[in-house]
Amino acid sequence: MGTVVVGFVPKPEGEAALDRAIEEAKLRGARVVVVNSHRGGGDLDQESSSRADQDMEAVKAKLDAAGVDHELRKLVRGFEPAEDLIGIADDADAELIVIGLRRRSPVGKLILGSNAQRILLDAKCPVLAVKADA
Amino acid sequence: MGTVVVGFVPKPEGEAALDRAIEEAKLRGARVVVVNSHRGGGDLDQESSSRADQDMEAVKAKLDAAGVDHELRKLVRGFEPAEDLIGIADDADAELIVIGLRRRSPVGKLILGSNAQRILLDAKCPVLAVKADA
Repeated sequence: MGTVVVGFVPKPEGEAALDRAIEEAKLRGARVVVVNSHRGGGDLDQESSSRADQDMEAVKAKLDAAGVDHELRKLVRGFEPAEDLIGIADDADAELIVIGLRRRSPVGKLILGSNAQRILLDAKCPVLAVKADA
Repeated sequence: MGTVVVGFVPKPEGEAALDRAIEEAKLRGARVVVVNSHRGGGDLDQESSSRADQDMEAVKAKLDAAGVDHELRKLVRGFEPAEDLIGIADDADAELIVIGLRRRSPVGKLILGSNAQRILLDAKCPVLAVKADA
């Protein structure tokens, strides 16, 4: 069974990435691995951690409802999210990584975030970039 | 029938994008629109133009062999390739754009090309970024 790896953040672009990852997994008969990365230390106090757990509960409910095989990976460590995502995709021999991109405003800068650039440039497998609906 | 739009350049990453676009079109029961953009003027002398025609013949042969519905769009005009690709994808209400990215060397810069960034940021539909096999 193939693997679709998706980077999840509790924002519209993260939800869009999750939804698309589920669709792609169904299309390919693959399972979904959801990666939710947090930097350790001061960034993640107890309140944030408990909110993150609630977010992941909602993710799990969506995956259960969709009926796709899945695994949730919540990572709290010192790596950049891009490294976590690429490492997990490599280990799982993923066939696809799905990431969410923020929509830029009409006057927004034409620069992709460094995490997105790193995933696009360094992932071994194809990367599907989706945006939240306008 | 859905549409998968692919930006083609006669380079390993362009061939990888075309191959993947064909796979994705088969998976989705979609057609493939191949966009081959050239800036007009001095950039495209007769020799380059005739070589470009040969490249597109090879693309057509590959699409015929794959048995997917397709359309070839060779554009020679003053727009950036990103604008051509996004414009055609919008007009066709594409469900997916496939682009090829160059692999960066181990010491390569961590910066995506401006055309790729523009497509990723401005396309209305999801964008699948693929690289040539190492």
